[in-house]
Amino acid sequence: MAKIAMKFGGTSVADLDRIRHVAGLVAKEVSQGNQVAVVVSAMAGETNKLVGWTKEISPLHDAREYDVVVAAGEQITAGLLAVALGAIGVSARSWTGWQIPIRTSAMHGSARIEGIDPALLNERMGQGQVAVIAGFQGIAPDNRISTLGRGGSDTSAVAIAAAIKADRCDIYTDVDGVYTTDPRIVPKARRLPKIAFEEMLEMASLGAKVLQTRSVEIAMLYRVPVRVLSTFDPDAGGTLLCDEEDIVEKKPVTGIAYSRDEAKISLMRIPDRPGIAAAIFGPLADSGVNVDMIVQNISEDGRRTDLTFTCARSELARALSALEKAGPSIGYREITSDSNMAKVSIIGIGMRAHPGVAQTMFRTLSDKGINIQVISTSEIKVSVLISEEYVELAVRALHSAFELDAA
Amino acid sequence: MAKIAMKFGGTSVADLDRIRHVAGLVAKEVSQGNQVAVVVSAMAGETNKLVGWTKEISPLHDAREYDVVVAAGEQITAGLLAVALGAIGVSARSWTGWQIPIRTSAMHGSARIEGIDPALLNERMGQGQVAVIAGFQGIAPDNRISTLGRGGSDTSAVAIAAAIKADRCDIYTDVDGVYTTDPRIVPKARRLPKIAFEEMLEMASLGAKVLQTRSVEIAMLYRVPVRVLSTFDPDAGGTLLCDEEDIVEKKPVTGIAYSRDEAKISLMRIPDRPGIAAAIFGPLADSGVNVDMIVQNISEDGRRTDLTFTCARSELARALSALEKAGPSIGYREITSDSNMAKVSIIGIGMRAHPGVAQTMFRTLSDKGINIQVISTSEIKVSVLISEEYVELAVRALHSAFELDAA
Repeated sequence: MAKIAMKFGGTSVADLDRIRHVAGLVAKEVSQGNQVAVVVSAMAGETNKLVGWTKEISPLHDAREYDVVVAAGEQITAGLLAVALGAIGVSARSWTGWQIPIRTSAMHGSARIEGIDPALLNERMGQGQVAVIAGFQGIAPDNRISTLGRGGSDTSAVAIAAAIKADRCDIYTDVDGVYTTDPRIVPKARRLPKIAFEEMLEMASLGAKVLQTRSVEIAMLYRVPVRVLSTFDPDAGGTLLCDEEDIVEKKPVTGIAYSRDEAKISLMRIPDRPGIAAAIFGPLADSGVNVDMIVQNISEDGRRTDLTFTCARSELARALSALEKAGPSIGYREITSDSNMAKVSIIGIGMRAHPGVAQTMFRTLSDKGINIQVISTSEIKVSVLISEEYVELAVRALHSAFELDAA
Repeated sequence: MAKIAMKFGGTSVADLDRIRHVAGLVAKEVSQGNQVAVVVSAMAGETNKLVGWTKEISPLHDAREYDVVVAAGEQITAGLLAVALGAIGVSARSWTGWQIPIRTSAMHGSARIEGIDPALLNERMGQGQVAVIAGFQGIAPDNRISTLGRGGSDTSAVAIAAAIKADRCDIYTDVDGVYTTDPRIVPKARRLPKIAFEEMLEMASLGAKVLQTRSVEIAMLYRVPVRVLSTFDPDAGGTLLCDEEDIVEKKPVTGIAYSRDEAKISLMRIPDRPGIAAAIFGPLADSGVNVDMIVQNISEDGRRTDLTFTCARSELARALSALEKAGPSIGYREITSDSNMAKVSIIGIGMRAHPGVAQTMFRTLSDKGINIQVISTSEIKVSVLISEEYVELAVRALHSAFELDAA
């Protein structure tokens, strides 16, 4: 007997037939003697509808009310799946975030889980009752409903798995695992049977959409064995998130991620003096702009230099406005910006043992005539900023160069 | 300054434009210095959709899960209305049933409100914040979401009004008040400017759909002045529910209600002995059949007689099955049943002072050739069971006979 957390995303519960199919997958685990907690998303399209309504009534809506509206989607799915389980003779009950409770921070709209009380879930699961849990939601310190941000049900599932000390957490989705890169761009992309937590964290935060970044952080922190599986072909193999030590063959690069959601801002001829970075990035932080990559040119005359950084495309207007206001205290000559940027990243724990990986990346791009505008590296990844029009070309070329193509 | 509860039904909040319109009506009360609590239903069609999904997955669903699914509709409207109020500068926040809390019985799907804690609402309303409350829902003793049955938001509103000691409770709906009878059947039906609580209670329980019966009971018990108004024409006048003493002109009949949802069962040649009623109605009660009208013929020989009763059409099959099982202990010769029955009722507190009202009713129906099959009376109403095909004819004839037609 094992204790299992299962998670089903929006496309997996998109209609009543699919909810019945999910009930069948849960019943199979129960029939094998397992205790099961299931975390569900809203039915596909439902969240977009609710978000759309809220924004249409007021673009500047209260995030607490946004959460009240949007969290209803997961509540509906949880109730329906509990009914579907009952209909095939599986004992089940639904749980909302506040009933468990799943306590979160007060940051409505993108709250962080701060604690989950596993007592009630453990008691009922111990009696053989399946816990059907509304994902994406919790309860904030003010006793109001909170939500965890897009993809938050992944995080709910992994956090629940950690809280109940599940033997594994199975994330069922519409793809059969984590791929070396996006198969829509590279048809020769391969499913990875295993990926290290650290790699998955980089992949998720650098643009791979298969798991919410925060869910991988929690999985890594609590060592929750997470599997990514296909709802529609659950026997296809999937991908297991595991410790680095459990991966035997360590290629230099495991996967390639990309993000089109990038904008670049350059401040020309700023004074090359101590405190200039604070004068620039302080106002940006105050405006809620998340700065990603930063590069500062070497000063030619020791007095003035240029600085370039990137942020999400949706934050570009806010960033420019903040910088213009701070113009006098920064003292730049000119601002230029470009919103048609993309970031391409290579990721792999094998990089630590394989020198020259970055060099291979740069040469591959250079051979294709792709200009690299900004570079950012860590121990297990190299990211480059390029013009968006080259993103498919770059990803395909790198996928071949690092020998990731399927045979 | 007054304290006001407002309630808006499903058609009043059917889309975003209507929700904005409702926000305008609330803002108007606030601008007059009033403290406001607003109770909202689910957007028109939403509840039917959610109920339909639940039933499609399993006709024999767990009522607790039904409540989880269906209550989401009101939660969504409450959040959206709070956003709409914020967008026009009115301070507001949404409240779900469990947040207030609105405590109910454990009868999921048709729970009764057992208590409302007004402390949080009073505190916030005292600070000038509009309380936007999800109607139809509460929290059961097991800490799970409960719902109050169809039309339950009326009851939520009146119970909230009683709990916060509101000066009045305005029920906004798609008609501009309570009419002498259904205007779809009788175009000459008139809006009643006032109606006594007792009359409204009979009207509601005998088929008039304008208010849930339970809401009228609570209004009567706590003497909540309830007004029924049109959302789309709020200045049209409406109907005030009030004490009997506040109605000056007391006609013999105030209104005519009807219900098509009736079935009749007759047990032929049952033994005319003490205990026979218990032998019949005990098994029916145990099967959850609500028996309405009952008539027992006078025994001709002192040994055997016939008994007829009515129940809701939806309960006919269950009633027949219960009676067949109890056949040996009852000892009837034959059962007959008819599901095409209707009940027509005349209601009026003036009846107490006007003898002969029942006689006028019977003669009017007789003149139209309508056969009365069962009669039931109380101090302020007379109900008759007739064949369903005559229901429009009967209502129109009675509306004229009791001088209710508009000039």
